[in-house]
Amino acid sequence: MIYVVGIGPGSKDTMTLEAIKAIEDSEAIVGYKTYIKLIEEFIQDKEIIQNGMRQEVDRCKQAVEEAKKGKKVAVVSSGDAGIYGMAGLILELISKEDEDIKVKVIPGVTASIGAAAILGAPIMHDFCHISLSDLMTPWEVIEKRLRLAAEADFVICLYNPRSKGRSEHLSKAFKIMGEFKGGDTPVGVVKDVGREKEEKFVCTFENMDFEKVDMTTMVIIGNKSTYINGELMITPRGYTV
Amino acid sequence: MIYVVGIGPGSKDTMTLEAIKAIEDSEAIVGYKTYIKLIEEFIQDKEIIQNGMRQEVDRCKQAVEEAKKGKKVAVVSSGDAGIYGMAGLILELISKEDEDIKVKVIPGVTASIGAAAILGAPIMHDFCHISLSDLMTPWEVIEKRLRLAAEADFVICLYNPRSKGRSEHLSKAFKIMGEFKGGDTPVGVVKDVGREKEEKFVCTFENMDFEKVDMTTMVIIGNKSTYINGELMITPRGYTV
Repeated sequence: MIYVVGIGPGSKDTMTLEAIKAIEDSEAIVGYKTYIKLIEEFIQDKEIIQNGMRQEVDRCKQAVEEAKKGKKVAVVSSGDAGIYGMAGLILELISKEDEDIKVKVIPGVTASIGAAAILGAPIMHDFCHISLSDLMTPWEVIEKRLRLAAEADFVICLYNPRSKGRSEHLSKAFKIMGEFKGGDTPVGVVKDVGREKEEKFVCTFENMDFEKVDMTTMVIIGNKSTYINGELMITPRGYTV
Repeated sequence: MIYVVGIGPGSKDTMTLEAIKAIEDSEAIVGYKTYIKLIEEFIQDKEIIQNGMRQEVDRCKQAVEEAKKGKKVAVVSSGDAGIYGMAGLILELISKEDEDIKVKVIPGVTASIGAAAILGAPIMHDFCHISLSDLMTPWEVIEKRLRLAAEADFVICLYNPRSKGRSEHLSKAFKIMGEFKGGDTPVGVVKDVGREKEEKFVCTFENMDFEKVDMTTMVIIGNKSTYINGELMITPRGYTV
């Protein structure tokens, strides 16, 4: 039995009851070491299998091996396990096995939703998620999505916006979106959603400071109706108030 | 003090700890009657202000009035309060008040994430949300977003896909997306996510049965890599397995 568990953006309080129950019910916990640390209090006395970034496939293969021994295993992802998380990988690996291993995906609060709650209400209308990581997606595909999403006037949430190895991706993305997003479009930025060092700011599209963004930052670009009110970013749903 | 609380797609288990705490901390609970029923066990002995559909503005105004009396009020939405929910409306109303009323938005698991967990892993890559309700959004805007989202090869999650008064919206939407989505594109459908009468099926774009869809159904259309494996719908993230 494998539970693929989204633990929410980072604080215990954003875990669902179902996620906590699944972790408590498991004998072995598999995850990236940063996430394992976030759930320490629930996993005393359990077998822990943790490793570093970019070792997702190894980690999931280990989870499958443990489950084949008859163990109940929880594979943990931050946010939601089905959004750039481990759910797909586990299901793909399981489909190659002869044995019938049960998998249950436990939904969680993804980073965009956590960041939105901190910023006010920026994703109240149609929005999209785009990851700026080109490790597994050709950059041309990412560019095309950025351009069409901006043209469609979606609120745009950027995952993996900027890393040391890809410091130019975010500014390139803004250049592409700038064909359709006006300079006064509100942008909300939240670093380390739900964690101790959480930070947020709102600015406009033309005044965006890319240097303030790293891999654990969520960047949300508004649509044509989005406005800033004090420290809040609000995208109206359309009610007359 | 107003908490704007997303209670998750429908079962108690998909509520976060923070959502439960906010509801328990509140003296008055405001919400659409169907959602009030879902959280019955947490709101014994509290003042309940509930009303029907399309009365969102009245409901939120009442919440603000109660908060102005000094009460702690929880405004509940199903799913996440910041996604087609009540967060924006409450913040817009508060901004018109002279008094300083504190608002805290509590994030929740939205319907697309809940439905995705039941279907397998369909939103593992870039995706968007589009509401097919034209009550507050011009239909031309919805059409444009559908066309560009399909061209961008997003996984597309449709909210409010079909109601009695708008029975043709979903088939019209499929016609528009069909310019870019192939007939064999997987489609996942989940009715009443997380509730007792939950139902799901997967099919292909060309074989979609619109009659099976109503207002409380989530429809997820895959991207060019999405595949069906048994009863599961999987969009690979791109790992080599």
